[in-house]
Amino acid sequence: MQVVYTPAEIAALVGAQRTAGTTTRSITDIASLSAARAGDLTFLGNAKYKAQVAATAATVVLLPLDYVGEPQAAQVFLFVKNPSVALARVCARIEQSLWPKLPPGVHPSAVVAPTARVDATAHIGPLCVIEDGVQIGAGTVLQASVFVGREARVGEGCLIMPGCVIAASCSLGNRVRLQPGVVIGSDGFGYEFVAGRHEKVPQIGNVVIGDDVEIGANSTLDRARFSRTVVGEGTKIDNLVQIAHNVIIGQHCILCAQSGISGSTTLEDYVILGGQCGLGGHITVHKGGKVGGGAGLTTDVPAGGYVNGTPAIPYMLERRIAVLSQRLPELFKRVEALEKNLE
Amino acid sequence: MQVVYTPAEIAALVGAQRTAGTTTRSITDIASLSAARAGDLTFLGNAKYKAQVAATAATVVLLPLDYVGEPQAAQVFLFVKNPSVALARVCARIEQSLWPKLPPGVHPSAVVAPTARVDATAHIGPLCVIEDGVQIGAGTVLQASVFVGREARVGEGCLIMPGCVIAASCSLGNRVRLQPGVVIGSDGFGYEFVAGRHEKVPQIGNVVIGDDVEIGANSTLDRARFSRTVVGEGTKIDNLVQIAHNVIIGQHCILCAQSGISGSTTLEDYVILGGQCGLGGHITVHKGGKVGGGAGLTTDVPAGGYVNGTPAIPYMLERRIAVLSQRLPELFKRVEALEKNLE
Amino acid sequence: MQVVYTPAEIAALVGAQRTAGTTTRSITDIASLSAARAGDLTFLGNAKYKAQVAATAATVVLLPLDYVGEPQAAQVFLFVKNPSVALARVCARIEQSLWPKLPPGVHPSAVVAPTARVDATAHIGPLCVIEDGVQIGAGTVLQASVFVGREARVGEGCLIMPGCVIAASCSLGNRVRLQPGVVIGSDGFGYEFVAGRHEKVPQIGNVVIGDDVEIGANSTLDRARFSRTVVGEGTKIDNLVQIAHNVIIGQHCILCAQSGISGSTTLEDYVILGGQCGLGGHITVHKGGKVGGGAGLTTDVPAGGYVNGTPAIPYMLERRIAVLSQRLPELFKRVEALEKNLE
Repeated sequence: MQVVYTPAEIAALVGAQRTAGTTTRSITDIASLSAARAGDLTFLGNAKYKAQVAATAATVVLLPLDYVGEPQAAQVFLFVKNPSVALARVCARIEQSLWPKLPPGVHPSAVVAPTARVDATAHIGPLCVIEDGVQIGAGTVLQASVFVGREARVGEGCLIMPGCVIAASCSLGNRVRLQPGVVIGSDGFGYEFVAGRHEKVPQIGNVVIGDDVEIGANSTLDRARFSRTVVGEGTKIDNLVQIAHNVIIGQHCILCAQSGISGSTTLEDYVILGGQCGLGGHITVHKGGKVGGGAGLTTDVPAGGYVNGTPAIPYMLERRIAVLSQRLPELFKRVEALEKNLE
Repeated sequence: MQVVYTPAEIAALVGAQRTAGTTTRSITDIASLSAARAGDLTFLGNAKYKAQVAATAATVVLLPLDYVGEPQAAQVFLFVKNPSVALARVCARIEQSLWPKLPPGVHPSAVVAPTARVDATAHIGPLCVIEDGVQIGAGTVLQASVFVGREARVGEGCLIMPGCVIAASCSLGNRVRLQPGVVIGSDGFGYEFVAGRHEKVPQIGNVVIGDDVEIGANSTLDRARFSRTVVGEGTKIDNLVQIAHNVIIGQHCILCAQSGISGSTTLEDYVILGGQCGLGGHITVHKGGKVGGGAGLTTDVPAGGYVNGTPAIPYMLERRIAVLSQRLPELFKRVEALEKNLE
Repeated sequence: MQVVYTPAEIAALVGAQRTAGTTTRSITDIASLSAARAGDLTFLGNAKYKAQVAATAATVVLLPLDYVGEPQAAQVFLFVKNPSVALARVCARIEQSLWPKLPPGVHPSAVVAPTARVDATAHIGPLCVIEDGVQIGAGTVLQASVFVGREARVGEGCLIMPGCVIAASCSLGNRVRLQPGVVIGSDGFGYEFVAGRHEKVPQIGNVVIGDDVEIGANSTLDRARFSRTVVGEGTKIDNLVQIAHNVIIGQHCILCAQSGISGSTTLEDYVILGGQCGLGGHITVHKGGKVGGGAGLTTDVPAGGYVNGTPAIPYMLERRIAVLSQRLPELFKRVEALEKNLE
């Protein structure tokens, strides 16, 4: 961080209801209670860390209103309703000063096709490529080295980071955020085996991304064989995730890093996938279903269900079997003892 | 899609042997029988969906010659020998109109070394970098922002999508297709542990890709320590796959998404890896061997063998053990009952 | 390879203590004992391949001083203290001639902000983007199409390959090597669930990479929520690895391909992760701990510990259970027999 705030500025920003202690020092960083040093801001976000407050070396501490205790010398306590929300407010302010919104305009090194319609308020950074027939909405930022293929559409207020590829005919809603290196609209993986060779099945569908979706670095989303691969409004996808052709993802889902979803599978709304999940093709995770990290899913998950393991089964059963598996050495011995007993 | 076909154009394109019904509507999209709406083309590709034909809202339906039934009002049935093949023909035509082949020439923003030999019929898109001694074959397309390092060679009729990196000295055959973000020729991961530090082992080999290979988005293929990392003719690799140094992959293999192959392992011809497989180093999957999705392979697979699980074992055994594992709670109870019985 | 060495040049380069045989042939490639052909250099790096020396078709063979045997016609034996080290010396020489160090200077197509401080000895290749306030150290090479965001810092002697993204405020030490497509400083994956939607938690920390770190192709390292995500000196990370926000990785660790580490987890020094590991959040792998390939880690690993499986448990126990699991069909039969016996 290259930012400096006085404790008073922070108190104002978070709307502190009460203050204790004084310091002449300014805040230049944020850290956890135990890691903080002089010059840091910290916070008590979880009651279980309460005991760490007395010993923290932080210069400013955000505390809940009911916290009882006194600051050390040259330390300031700021009492607020919700320290986590207060911290998020500080972070959002720092974010703005670190990375101010980029101004409208097209960098002279960008290559923009004459038939592309780029809103006058959009920012097209250096070395972007925008092909024929593309639409870029108001306030959208392509940071640098972004490729947008023929007839693709990017909505309003999007932030597309360096190295992203949005291939031809794909469509992004508003306020979509793509981390660096995301690929939208690579070909689906489809072949027919003819006379000893894999013949490519044309992949002529597209990818449609809803509003307020965020996609993590180097994740890949394949275009549909025909029709659409879909990511619903508000869904958040982590890094290095693979979405195959014709997958349909509902609204407000969470997909953790390195998960992969095979072709034509459906996630309904509010589904959560842990990290490194693998989902087979043509299955459905119904509304609010959860898949544990590393699980290998081969069958549907009912609404609100929670599965784990490979092949994935209901979570509690999987946990029980995992525990019993670790007792296999004992079980073999017990069976042996029974056999001896009966000889 | 931004395409429009009349039912008569489609009938001609697929060589319909018989037609039933009439409509004035044109076709603007393709969808499955159950998802199709007016204006869509659909098809009966699998007999198990036969019952859905009567209810489909599609405007045009591709049907096998032996299908018995009548179209609805404003609906056209086209009878063909193989509806799947007929659909592929329509898709291929749409693909051409959506994404016409790019014309020969080098975009002025591309940076091409004077000693590079780029065929006059190749298309070098905007912001590509082509280093010294590179060869680019006839009819090959580098779409945009592609990097080709010193002395690398790209054959004829290749399609290299945006953001791909083909590092120095690597070689691609003819009609190779790289989806966006593929890395060919990153260094192999090799170190020697000397005096408490990992010293880099130089990786001076290359990667050699055969004809008609396709590689999925953001996949990575490491150059050999020395000699070659090889991908054989006709092999298809999905997204986010990792191929380590000195791996040898035969012809016409299929590697599904997010699989990883450790150093010096060999896949013979016609091998199939499911998604998210992990293969240890220095092992061989013999001709036609199959590895199930998510499997962790530590030993050779015999020709035609099919393994699954972690560590991978023969498929039928793995399935049986997976089922029995889920009966562990029952087994523990049965052993307990036996023990009580014998007390 | 496009290199040619005479056997005498190689003898000089490796400091051969003794030579046997003669040839007029030059060396144009390197191969293993069994794969080598005329014109190749090979070596006996592991005593178990001793029997292959007599039959190798290589033109030059690097052998340990105590090897007993005679070369074939037109074959040269070079006796050295350590053939592996000798080979590495040859490879390092070849590496220099294949890929000579790029000269200082900024390519005219690069887009460099006026406030960036680029050392005069650095090489900034074509189509790089360097934003405001960036520092690039002496002798560092950005090969091509590299993005370095606002206020980021790259140390001395680094090699950053094509397509890498070093996002704003991140920091790299000296002699760091990034393979193509690495993303440093994507946002951490953090949301708060408010009124049915996932609200983004600002991610305002950075990523700090120590000296002599190498990171593999298309790997992703997220910036911290606040404070730092850290990779310690000398650590080596393979391809397609995911490092989440606020992860702390110590010195001289090895992380194999496609592994993923969840937020706020700590690896102490000299930790080794096999390929495709998944580590949960907020756990610690203590000094020298090892995690087997494909393992799913949910708890701490003690110093020097070695765990495997999902959920990961001590290696020897996991191996034993894996073996016993494969005997489950037998165990079920034995229990059935006991039950019949007692009827």
